[in-house]
Amino acid sequence: MRLRNKPRAAGEIAANSQYITTTPAEFKGQWQSKFAQAQPLSIEVGSGKGRFIVEMAKAHPERNFIGIEIQPSVAIMILEKQLVAKLPNLYLIQADGGDLTDFFAENEVAQIYLNFSDPWPKSRHAKRRLTHRLFLAMYQQILQPEGSLQFKTDNRGLFEFSLISFNQFGMQFKELSLDLHADDVPENIETEYEQRFSQMGHPIYLIEAQFNASAAANVQPDADR
Amino acid sequence: MRLRNKPRAAGEIAANSQYITTTPAEFKGQWQSKFAQAQPLSIEVGSGKGRFIVEMAKAHPERNFIGIEIQPSVAIMILEKQLVAKLPNLYLIQADGGDLTDFFAENEVAQIYLNFSDPWPKSRHAKRRLTHRLFLAMYQQILQPEGSLQFKTDNRGLFEFSLISFNQFGMQFKELSLDLHADDVPENIETEYEQRFSQMGHPIYLIEAQFNASAAANVQPDADR
Repeated sequence: MRLRNKPRAAGEIAANSQYITTTPAEFKGQWQSKFAQAQPLSIEVGSGKGRFIVEMAKAHPERNFIGIEIQPSVAIMILEKQLVAKLPNLYLIQADGGDLTDFFAENEVAQIYLNFSDPWPKSRHAKRRLTHRLFLAMYQQILQPEGSLQFKTDNRGLFEFSLISFNQFGMQFKELSLDLHADDVPENIETEYEQRFSQMGHPIYLIEAQFNASAAANVQPDADR
Repeated sequence: MRLRNKPRAAGEIAANSQYITTTPAEFKGQWQSKFAQAQPLSIEVGSGKGRFIVEMAKAHPERNFIGIEIQPSVAIMILEKQLVAKLPNLYLIQADGGDLTDFFAENEVAQIYLNFSDPWPKSRHAKRRLTHRLFLAMYQQILQPEGSLQFKTDNRGLFEFSLISFNQFGMQFKELSLDLHADDVPENIETEYEQRFSQMGHPIYLIEAQFNASAAANVQPDADR
């Protein structure tokens, strides 16, 4: 499917540069110019079909959103949602999220979302996991000091790996759920994948954490909850 | 049951001082004298009926073990196991684990186990949870620098709280499982409670972590696994 759709995808992306780009490095440090107004910028790495980023943009007009998707044939499914919704606070990137520090300037991003990222279960592929320390170092560089990373998955092995990876990187945990849907969080926006797997009874895991090394090492915030 | 048993418990404990004490502060810094030989010391805070600590002592003759249980009527259930097994590397304390730094000297302990601790689900009781930072500060004081804390529970809320508490305290995660029994860890020794609840299909959570603030803050160990 990916190959068959590719010619159409490339044309559709090229024809809609007001909503999507394949050359994000050109706009490094300039992303606010893509939106109706300058507001805190949230990005999602690996947006898939786009339900999460589109619904977030609708729910939070006070923030700007960028969805990043590597596959052209998938990225155009988000684009097609945006061609209908025409949200002034949503922009799309069709490119490899592995090059994030080429796309965003230091401190340009307020919030990063990772949703149901590829688990890459084999040990020799650990470096491809979006929560590997190689990626964390990139997120840290583009995130504002008080910015945070939020990660959702139904993959137990990936979540276990990620908790250890975040902790060993010195990140500070802010929120954590080992069964998000049991917690009944009304503001949770589900991805397409999340809707399907949650209905099958899989627990959905969530963590929100900050790169605040000094706070994590020296301060003892109130852990009562 | 507790009240009815108490007179018998006190007598039974007093009659078996070679295996159990109610005045552990007397032996602070001297615990190795209780055992057949000096070996790394592991303690369990809240041993309940004692299956875990007794089986651990059987499985690891190269280590010494102390089980701590606050309730006399429960502590004698461990004592009765030991009166049969007569393990040379097991000793018992019937006292409040909240006074741990009165019982053990700095660096006297190599490993601390917490198993299925009381979740104290109400926020106003958070300080009673054995993974609250007030307890972590005590564990840190008595543990050797390379010592670790291992915690098992089936209580999701307590485990979520504990992961945040450990992380915010600056502890470094070493091992983590969100479904221990699915991982089929052959060396896992089950508590009485664990056997019952695991059979009911509850996932058992496990974390092992170290108080190695400098390592956690500065080093990036290999998180690949």
